Amino acid sequence: MKINENFLKIEGSYLFATVAKKQHEYEKANPDKEVIRLSIGDVTRPLAPAVIDAMHKAVDEMAHEETFQGYPPAYGYDFLLNAIQKNDYADRGVDITTDEIFVSDGAKSDCGNIGDIFSVDNKVAICDPVYPVYLDANIMDGRSGDKGEDGLFEKIVYMPCTAENGFMPELPKEKVDVIYLCFPNNPIGVTASKEQLKVWVDYALENDALILFDSAYKAFITDGSPESIYEVEGAKKCAIEFRSFSKTAGFTGVRCGYTVVPKELVFNGVELNALWARRQATKFNGVGYVTQRAAEAIFSEEGKKQTEDIIKYYQRNSQLIFDGLTEAGFTCYGAKNSPYVWLAVPEGMTSWEFFDELLEKCQVVGTPGSGFGPSGEGYLRLTGFGTYEKTLEAVDRVKKVFGK
Amino acid sequence: MKINENFLKIEGSYLFATVAKKQHEYEKANPDKEVIRLSIGDVTRPLAPAVIDAMHKAVDEMAHEETFQGYPPAYGYDFLLNAIQKNDYADRGVDITTDEIFVSDGAKSDCGNIGDIFSVDNKVAICDPVYPVYLDANIMDGRSGDKGEDGLFEKIVYMPCTAENGFMPELPKEKVDVIYLCFPNNPIGVTASKEQLKVWVDYALENDALILFDSAYKAFITDGSPESIYEVEGAKKCAIEFRSFSKTAGFTGVRCGYTVVPKELVFNGVELNALWARRQATKFNGVGYVTQRAAEAIFSEEGKKQTEDIIKYYQRNSQLIFDGLTEAGFTCYGAKNSPYVWLAVPEGMTSWEFFDELLEKCQVVGTPGSGFGPSGEGYLRLTGFGTYEKTLEAVDRVKKVFGK
Repeated sequence: MKINENFLKIEGSYLFATVAKKQHEYEKANPDKEVIRLSIGDVTRPLAPAVIDAMHKAVDEMAHEETFQGYPPAYGYDFLLNAIQKNDYADRGVDITTDEIFVSDGAKSDCGNIGDIFSVDNKVAICDPVYPVYLDANIMDGRSGDKGEDGLFEKIVYMPCTAENGFMPELPKEKVDVIYLCFPNNPIGVTASKEQLKVWVDYALENDALILFDSAYKAFITDGSPESIYEVEGAKKCAIEFRSFSKTAGFTGVRCGYTVVPKELVFNGVELNALWARRQATKFNGVGYVTQRAAEAIFSEEGKKQTEDIIKYYQRNSQLIFDGLTEAGFTCYGAKNSPYVWLAVPEGMTSWEFFDELLEKCQVVGTPGSGFGPSGEGYLRLTGFGTYEKTLEAVDRVKKVFGK
Repeated sequence: MKINENFLKIEGSYLFATVAKKQHEYEKANPDKEVIRLSIGDVTRPLAPAVIDAMHKAVDEMAHEETFQGYPPAYGYDFLLNAIQKNDYADRGVDITTDEIFVSDGAKSDCGNIGDIFSVDNKVAICDPVYPVYLDANIMDGRSGDKGEDGLFEKIVYMPCTAENGFMPELPKEKVDVIYLCFPNNPIGVTASKEQLKVWVDYALENDALILFDSAYKAFITDGSPESIYEVEGAKKCAIEFRSFSKTAGFTGVRCGYTVVPKELVFNGVELNALWARRQATKFNGVGYVTQRAAEAIFSEEGKKQTEDIIKYYQRNSQLIFDGLTEAGFTCYGAKNSPYVWLAVPEGMTSWEFFDELLEKCQVVGTPGSGFGPSGEGYLRLTGFGTYEKTLEAVDRVKKVFGK
């Protein structure tokens, strides 16, 4: 039996696992110090009351023969597909049909599994820095080639997002086939305007390329930027969109999201919608009933209001970090349309060096920018997903130690 | 952008979808007739009260900041891993550690995704007839080659399970690398003794092959046959085991299962445990908290008793079908250690012909054996997962029409 040798090309340890390990070791060595974790993108607010009510009701239905639910429909219950179609698309003027929506256990699974429907021979472009799943999934799938001495994989086209280009990727110089885009962006926390997205849609249409658009953070947009790539004309012919309820409604511990594969998306004469439908029907078995009822409740009038309040809570935190650290003399990006603050570390330090210093001097955990890609070197990602009190405390500590 | 052309080799329509479509068309044309569905493996009994209680409690925890749960641990909460380790393994004398267990959203996902960690170049052996996912996943992954005129994929080694060999696959004549086994078997409903499993373990150890052992139906075993392949010595060096709570505890609409990848499983000097851990950490994000608490409750004293009662309910149905149809003159297999009855269709008819006849004359839906593979031709699968009343009614109808 031969293993998939591509797996051996991946770094042995996952970025967030390394961060957690370092935190754990520090806490063990310093049991008297309270560490504040502004590192990973996990939420901390409880679920909205409307969601809780819907879950209790659905659990009760599972207790009685007349209302019990067995295998869910492979791509989602109609009640949830209809709610998504109306609220996330039709009400925003975007024409998506329910059979173009595939409910799943989260955007991470879909971002990772989507590669199943593409040939190994495609040229893949990713932003740098980027959410590690896009790269790692493509390494596993065999699209990366080997890692060079510069730390970059030879077949991957990296699109640097730096302060110089306003953290907006530039069109690749060589022709690429699959382009991962995430706006609002993780880890940098900036988002793209309609005009900026149009550049990518035009490129994809001209080059017979496919855009994989991750809009997991769309609920954090405050300035009217597009929530969906389908707000750009032509995108239905060249883009798949991933959506998550994790950040929109604090569903990280519930596990639900969805992926949109428009029927107009045709490559080599084949509808990608049919391929993804087949993939999901074979290697996935749908999302549980209680979870789908929970997701439906996000779209009720109460649910909408309650989840918006939760988003505002986190937005206040991100703004607090942004303002406080700017005051302390740091250069910060992000926050405005995102739960993330992208912090330039002090001159002459690496991301990991500053990570260690922040942990030791302030007991604050961030995520080193270099963990998201080489162009992330010199930055640290902080998130607004903590509690208000702890975020305030963390910012105060940083200001005391680093403030001028 | 190039698609994965392997997808085009798969039959356009999934077996169960075709069955459902035929049923739907019949019902539309005959609105006065009540159709009874003994076709797919979905459960109908409500969840056990202990499970319902645990879910309500967990939902309440998600409503409060102090007890709220965000991202689950990638491979499962300790409370569930410990319950599985103790009840499903240690108590049965099998030594499996919690870091060899990976909680997932179901055995179907894991059976489908496991191929990610193997090379495309492996020779795969499957039983015939078989649960369609094993074959379809390998077609997608590129291990099947093309379909020949005989309906068989050229690179797949089919192991016929027929009445002649007691529905037990024989060792392949050519060397194979990956062997899918499912006991109690789907669709035939027979299980393997320890001696029969040992033949496979010995073969795998001698041939450096890997066994993928699906024991989704282990709760239906009544005669003391092994529930786990690890009850056979040496299996930890050559087998991965898939488990599901779908049939054990009626979780088809909850979505939870787990996969065991022993650390002793080493190929080309690489631990498969580490590869699967990496795969799941990258392309999966764990199972929701409420779901894992539901699964934990299956292992409580009350939960065990209640779920056993549900199994007994279904077993009575399977036995009813087996006895009734035998009485009506049919040759039946299975039922004893399984929710499935494997029915030989009348001489001279195909599986689909008898499917149509049964639907038209008795308004009973089965699953054509040929849909599970060429050696399933001439059989029909019926299941005990219906209600007792409807199963009784279905059997009566068949006896009236076909009984001698």
